[in-house]
Amino acid sequence: MSKTIILQNKPAISGFAAVVGKKENEGPLKGLFDGVHNDTTCGEKSWEKAEVEMLQNAQNLAISKAGNKENAIEVAFSGDLLNQCIGSTFALKNSKIPAIGMYGACSTMALALANAAVFVDSKTIKSAIASASSHFCTAERQFRMPLEYGGQRVPSAQWTVTGAGACVVEQEGGGPKISAVSFGRIVDYHQTDVNNMGAAMAPAARDTIYNFLKDSGRQIADYCKIFTGDLGAVGGKILCELMNEKSIDISQIHEDCGTIIYDLNMQEVDSGGSGCGCSASVLCAKILPELSLGRLKKVLFVGTGALMSVTSQQQGETIPAIAHLVDIEA
Amino acid sequence: MSKTIILQNKPAISGFAAVVGKKENEGPLKGLFDGVHNDTTCGEKSWEKAEVEMLQNAQNLAISKAGNKENAIEVAFSGDLLNQCIGSTFALKNSKIPAIGMYGACSTMALALANAAVFVDSKTIKSAIASASSHFCTAERQFRMPLEYGGQRVPSAQWTVTGAGACVVEQEGGGPKISAVSFGRIVDYHQTDVNNMGAAMAPAARDTIYNFLKDSGRQIADYCKIFTGDLGAVGGKILCELMNEKSIDISQIHEDCGTIIYDLNMQEVDSGGSGCGCSASVLCAKILPELSLGRLKKVLFVGTGALMSVTSQQQGETIPAIAHLVDIEA
Repeated sequence: MSKTIILQNKPAISGFAAVVGKKENEGPLKGLFDGVHNDTTCGEKSWEKAEVEMLQNAQNLAISKAGNKENAIEVAFSGDLLNQCIGSTFALKNSKIPAIGMYGACSTMALALANAAVFVDSKTIKSAIASASSHFCTAERQFRMPLEYGGQRVPSAQWTVTGAGACVVEQEGGGPKISAVSFGRIVDYHQTDVNNMGAAMAPAARDTIYNFLKDSGRQIADYCKIFTGDLGAVGGKILCELMNEKSIDISQIHEDCGTIIYDLNMQEVDSGGSGCGCSASVLCAKILPELSLGRLKKVLFVGTGALMSVTSQQQGETIPAIAHLVDIEA
Repeated sequence: MSKTIILQNKPAISGFAAVVGKKENEGPLKGLFDGVHNDTTCGEKSWEKAEVEMLQNAQNLAISKAGNKENAIEVAFSGDLLNQCIGSTFALKNSKIPAIGMYGACSTMALALANAAVFVDSKTIKSAIASASSHFCTAERQFRMPLEYGGQRVPSAQWTVTGAGACVVEQEGGGPKISAVSFGRIVDYHQTDVNNMGAAMAPAARDTIYNFLKDSGRQIADYCKIFTGDLGAVGGKILCELMNEKSIDISQIHEDCGTIIYDLNMQEVDSGGSGCGCSASVLCAKILPELSLGRLKKVLFVGTGALMSVTSQQQGETIPAIAHLVDIEA
């Protein structure tokens, strides 16, 4: 079961921004980002501070693009991959926006956006910001090896995106509208290979998409695109196969943020991008602009997260996964 | 600024449960817990699995005490201190409840309860569960030293509670009612001593309590007690002084969960308890039962969290803090 919530008032994403690193701006989305840091440290003393800098940039740009000032934002929903979510903490500590910390691994942008949408749609608040970030260098050393080690990669491995995205969600205002959200349950297919997160997450994406369609009565034909938020090439293929088992063909309209942000043939990222910043920056640099321009009419944005840690992995645990869905229309 | 939300429908906490370890049941709250594990591993292979076991116990007991079955719960809001929140992930992975991961360090129980209350009060959903956990042994080795090292402690240090708490929140039903919540902003007083988290968190508690009173027009005299969740003895004293600076005297009605759960003279916990499980288990074993019995009429439950990580600490960063508030009445 997922929990699908139809939003009667369709809150608007009135401002959105993506800020990324050099490699991300050398891929297919070159030139579409609101900010690019060509130095992986963003001129800061550490990669963690660089991630904070990118996330703050994205938040500030989204607020300003919404035509707002910071004090108009009532609540910030934010999360990241760093232990104890210090990316979001340090990004928000200099603002005065009340902060709700979220954790959904790489699904965090969809999770934060869905929560913001519920708070705004129910008229609990008028405006919120949802954001998420990741950084290749902070993630590698925290989850894998010191960068200097130069570890080998396998073809199913994904490359953590250095990037951040932020969306302002408001009751009123222009911009794409959120017409429904669906919170996923945790799905565990007993996958244990941390170099193949796509395989761990694909069943969660299937679960949430399938349940959402059943709950809402909406059809695949209603959508221009289904964007999953980082299954990569390997996981994306598995998702299409798993949906086929349910007699639902999404292969014609499915794209994965992890394969959109990089050129998989040229950029040596193996199965594609990952990290909270992957779906967050693709959402804000490509999906929402295309909805704003009317090039897309209606899409599903499905964030996927692998809910493991170094400790759980070292203790031989499986990799549970989750997917949260946001239904967005022009 | 905090974001204060007055809940028009006053959702009920229809079921609640606390499950703790041996040391916690040797303190002043002995015999009040719904479950006690006298073995720190709860018969599991690792302390992390033990934490998961406690959290699952608390969730299941809360659901059953609410007279519900698991499938009646629409959304679970849960978090913990472990890297990437694996406590909550592994506790929820065997359930079918859609999961919203939350992170607020030791304020997580208040954060999760406040979010559940907003979702239920706005009639977005009918029922939710809010939960949080911590474990002395998982926290020590992750944040401090291997237990075997036998590190020295200073008098301002706090002792991570081995415990979990869970609350079922519903539109209808008996039990204490939530009449308002307030989400805090991140406050940074440039405290850097990880052995004195109380001092880092007290300004955040002041900020949220002060702003809540201002926003809601409610008075200190309206409350039987203000429970902070876990400043310890050192931080609790600082909070009272900081409130005095604002000409608000809370000293007669303030108690801190970190000083309630342990006997500070006898149990060698220095400044008192901490960890997500501290305020979560005190809430569910003492505060909510006393409200249910009418011994307390109206309280503020103010979770406080120190938003640092080992990385931020090693990089010389300050300790930002946050406090989230829940106004609960009989």
